[in-house]
Order: sequence, then C-alpha cells, then structure tokens
Amino acid sequence: MNRLRLVLVDTEGSINLGMILRLAANFSVKEIYLVSSRQYDQEEVKKYAVRADYLYDSLIRVSSIDDALAGCDIKVCTTAKSSEEDVLRSTISSAKLPELLSEYGSACLVFGRESTGLTREELSKCDITSAIPTSSEYPSLNLTNAVAIYLYELLSRNGELARELKVAQRDELEGAIAVFSQIAAEVMRDTNKITRAERAFRKMIYASSTTRTEVRIITHVLRRALRRIKLSKGIL
Amino acid sequence: MNRLRLVLVDTEGSINLGMILRLAANFSVKEIYLVSSRQYDQEEVKKYAVRADYLYDSLIRVSSIDDALAGCDIKVCTTAKSSEEDVLRSTISSAKLPELLSEYGSACLVFGRESTGLTREELSKCDITSAIPTSSEYPSLNLTNAVAIYLYELLSRNGELARELKVAQRDELEGAIAVFSQIAAEVMRDTNKITRAERAFRKMIYASSTTRTEVRIITHVLRRALRRIKLSKGIL
Repeated sequence: MNRLRLVLVDTEGSINLGMILRLAANFSVKEIYLVSSRQYDQEEVKKYAVRADYLYDSLIRVSSIDDALAGCDIKVCTTAKSSEEDVLRSTISSAKLPELLSEYGSACLVFGRESTGLTREELSKCDITSAIPTSSEYPSLNLTNAVAIYLYELLSRNGELARELKVAQRDELEGAIAVFSQIAAEVMRDTNKITRAERAFRKMIYASSTTRTEVRIITHVLRRALRRIKLSKGIL
Repeated sequence: MNRLRLVLVDTEGSINLGMILRLAANFSVKEIYLVSSRQYDQEEVKKYAVRADYLYDSLIRVSSIDDALAGCDIKVCTTAKSSEEDVLRSTISSAKLPELLSEYGSACLVFGRESTGLTREELSKCDITSAIPTSSEYPSLNLTNAVAIYLYELLSRNGELARELKVAQRDELEGAIAVFSQIAAEVMRDTNKITRAERAFRKMIYASSTTRTEVRIITHVLRRALRRIKLSKGIL
C-alpha cells in the first residue's frame, strides 16, 4: 500500500474529530475524508488536534460515502462486531491487514459513528471488514483509540513484508465479481441471497491477494459457466 | 509475560483517565496503578469510561512510583522522545516489546503526564524505555492513544485476545473446490487449463480465511451453476 485514505463517516464528537486530526499528523496521513453534514465545534476540534489544528482546513468534506471511497484500490470498513454468520461482519484482524494491504496501491480505511458504527449499507460498500481483537466482554473501543491502533498497525509498526507477486488490478477483480454475480442471479431468485453471495465472493477474491493470472483464469471459467447457463435458459 | 500492570503517573485529565479505564476493559487489563494525589472529576472520568466506569473503584492509588513498580519482573517506561545520546531515551520500539516481554513473568508499563511525560528520575526507575514509531514532525501522541497502541501491541494483536473467526473446515473448502473443478471440466476441454483453474480457485479459498457461512454460500451458487450446465448438456 502506497497511499492510505482515512474515511470518517458521520463522526459525532468534536473532541474525537480533533484527536483524530492529531493522529493523522502523528502518523503522516495525507488524506482525510469526512462524510458528514454535521456542524462541529471548531474551537474544540482544534483544541484537541493540538499542534495538528491546521489539518482542520484540509479535511475533505463530502456528502456521500461513495464520494469518499472513489478511486481506492481496496476499501476496508471497520467494526467492533464480528460474526461468522454475517458476510458483512466476517472480519479480518487488524494485525493481518498490513500484509494484505501491501498488495494494493491505495487503501481506504473507513470508521463509523461513535454510537452505532457503520450501517449495513455502508459496510456493503467496502470489500472487506476488519476488527481489532478485544475482550469479548467489552469489545467496543473509543473511536480515536481504534483509529490510533489501525494507523499504528498500518503505517508505523512494521518494516515492509516483501512479497514478489503483484496482485490484480481493481478492475480485473471487479470483472470476476461481476461475472460471478451474474451467475448467482441466474441460478438463484432471492435478491438477498444473490447479494450475500456476491459479497462472499468479493471478500474471498480481495482477501486472498489474487494475482492477475489467477483472476484471469477464474474469470475465464466463470464466463464460460455463465454462457452455458444462459444458452440453456431458453431450452430448459 | 503473564501479567501486565498499567502504571499511570500523575495523569492530568479526567477525560483521559476515563478513556484509559475503558481501554483497560477493552483489553482485559487487571491491574491499574495511579501515582497521583490529584482530585479528578469523578463524573467525567466515569462518563468517558462508559461501560468500564466500575473500574474507577478498583484503581490502585499510590503516592510514589516505587510503590507502583514493586514486584514487576520488568519495568518499561514510555516516552515520545527518543535519543541516541541519552541512555534514558535510548528507546525500544513498541513493536519489539512483545517478544522481549515474553521472557518475563510480569511487566509494568508506565505512562507519564500529558504535558511533560515522565521525569528523568521516573525514567531512571524503569529497566527500559519504549517509544511508538511516529512522524518526526509531530511525535507526541495523545496519552490515551499511546495507551491504546501499547495495549493492542502487548495484549491483543498477537493472539491473546484474538478470537479469530473460525474458518471453514477443510472438507467444506474441498467441497467447494470439487464443484468448481466440475464446472471447469464442463466448460473447458484442455486438462491443463482445468488443473490450473482448480489451483487458482483452491488458492483463493484457502488464502482468504473463508468462514463456514461464506463457503456454504459460494458452494451453493456453484452447485446450482453446475446443475444448470449439466442439464443443458444433452440438449445443446
């Protein structure tokens, strides 16, 4: 990963926003998007940003999460709630992210509201969901503490883990996903199930550092499968 | 390290103290010593401790740092200022601490004041000084964010708290692979290509920590796709 974009969705507190600006300076984050139409107490934000108060003016404020995510090679949502049953909360540990993200040029890292986190719709706009391992009794971290831990993990703690293989480009991965979705739509009727299937496939392909060759092979098979299914359609 | 004691030296802010109590609950820290004779705004502390407010009453308040450090096998002070020339600030990276502390039964981890950190005398009571790698332009982290990062590094990221989602069993993964292979064999003729396709799919599913739910969804789609392809076979 050469570029990390921090995306804050509807951050509620001015103290938290200020502390996050300070963190951005501490860890040399260059891009911060804020998806929110809230009014913040500018004085309080700057007070808690301390010497990073100047960053308040370089916040990129947008009104939709889509605008904030545009152009990222991999989009990572964060949550305090993991689940084995829910494909949107099938989380990857923060500790595993550096190696995973090292395969992509740019990454978006998305944090939700202090009170309720990210909505399901917001989670579904990311490729993978990540969580910090915490006590199961009280898993919910303060927002800025969570941001601190992720920035530390991604930008600070590690020497690069060298990997030789280049992963596929985003459009190549999206190509495979699109064909898989079409197959899912051909073979199932329930829209919900189709969406879940696409998400499961999306996570699998993004989380496995798929190379260009691998994605080409997979897409080839899927495309042929789809064609066969479509051909059979009028006949059966 | 079997036991971690958090030692707070003269913490200045009630908000910070509250946020640190919450972190202690998030990362299951059992012992917190507070070296201070300050009065805190108990209401504010508990507000920022949120669901960990009960920990306020289990804080062990002592008047000297010696009392706080007594009995620890290794004593680690923290600082934002590293220096090659100053033996008290010849720091060890937070990232190297887990391996180092693993050699000791119990460890004390000491954090100083928000404004001025630990005094030289306090630093001299520790065995080593540690720092978090940060931007040289603005190295000083907010106190609670520094605590968050150390607790994450020492207690969470290496698996003590990591309750990883359970990945699917091997036979479940093999089930999906088998169906995919059958599809490949249906839609391609070249044995070599079929074998490569299976391998690409195998890598993707094994490398992405696929959960039971995800593999079930994927297999379901593939199985239906296969059925549709087979049905069409005699006909086309």
